[in-house]
Amino acid sequence: MLKIGALIYPGFELLDLFGPMEMFGTMPEEFQLQLVAAEAGPVKSSGQLTAHADLALKDGHEFDVLFLPGGIGTRELIRDQEMLDWITKAGDAADHVLTVCTGSGIIAKAGLLDGHRATTNKMAFGWVEKMGPEVQWVKQARWVVDGKFRTSSGVSAGMDMALDFIADLHGREKAEEVAMWAEYEWHQDAARDPFAKLHGLVE
Amino acid sequence: MLKIGALIYPGFELLDLFGPMEMFGTMPEEFQLQLVAAEAGPVKSSGQLTAHADLALKDGHEFDVLFLPGGIGTRELIRDQEMLDWITKAGDAADHVLTVCTGSGIIAKAGLLDGHRATTNKMAFGWVEKMGPEVQWVKQARWVVDGKFRTSSGVSAGMDMALDFIADLHGREKAEEVAMWAEYEWHQDAARDPFAKLHGLVE
Repeated sequence: MLKIGALIYPGFELLDLFGPMEMFGTMPEEFQLQLVAAEAGPVKSSGQLTAHADLALKDGHEFDVLFLPGGIGTRELIRDQEMLDWITKAGDAADHVLTVCTGSGIIAKAGLLDGHRATTNKMAFGWVEKMGPEVQWVKQARWVVDGKFRTSSGVSAGMDMALDFIADLHGREKAEEVAMWAEYEWHQDAARDPFAKLHGLVE
Repeated sequence: MLKIGALIYPGFELLDLFGPMEMFGTMPEEFQLQLVAAEAGPVKSSGQLTAHADLALKDGHEFDVLFLPGGIGTRELIRDQEMLDWITKAGDAADHVLTVCTGSGIIAKAGLLDGHRATTNKMAFGWVEKMGPEVQWVKQARWVVDGKFRTSSGVSAGMDMALDFIADLHGREKAEEVAMWAEYEWHQDAARDPFAKLHGLVE
């Protein structure tokens, strides 16, 4: 059983969070999911709707998996030193760190990604690069795995990365079963990223 | 501006709800999103995590769009007459009724779908059929549009249906823009449903 702590904050992106959580949530005997925020209770997303955090920062930072969604709220999050300190500690403690979209910019800002390969959303690429000048940012990738870090491209890419994580832990057949359960056509090739071109990052 | 009221209940499926809401949420000038539940406040999904309802049933039933996610909690929901009555009223009042997965079984049980074509999740097809003996259930479809009713297949299919709804309201180009924003490879063909075969509903 892996304890996943997903950090949320005002202006997080709904699908960045709930797409991967849907996949993990189908395996309750393997994954325990919890949302963490500055305080426990309601946290408003960028998409008008509100999630409910189970835990506050002060409840601890020790999870097997640290998960960080992106969203427009990341622009404020990088100015919140208490959050960044928690992320650094939680990232150091975790065996796996997963981010979606601009979430990789946040863990870069928290110093976790220096020297590592990582990717992010293809529309906010320039902003994210600035968060981690020592990171080897990959322009074209659906997701990137480097050591304990798994960073995905924008929004929907988080689901493909989550299924790949399940495949690494429990076998490809299990991940395919989860995808089929969710009637999701899983894109299994981490290098396949049509959006890098659509957003003009590569020719 | 369309007001979307999404009804949630204990055991709703995370991605059924938040996949489509992600798509609508990128257009805040066109869609106002609200979660409705028996009571306002936290409502636990089937996937461990909790959403926060903005409104209670008693706050009214008049929305331009009624949205109903599926989930294992539907098995209890069909025994909740207060909820079913609210769904019947809200469905009658709405210009559009959208469901994902077993959500179509609920609006069938509430009497809204009689005589209409509709689809649902391919794994729970038998259960959903029983909820609406007078409904023309379609075994192979990513989603079905019949009059004001738009019913989708399981979980992920809701995103494809949501983008099709956006296309019908605001043009295909706008829907493609939303999909690209979310780095989502939209499946635009409502009839394309590989899961009907995978789950043995068709040969």
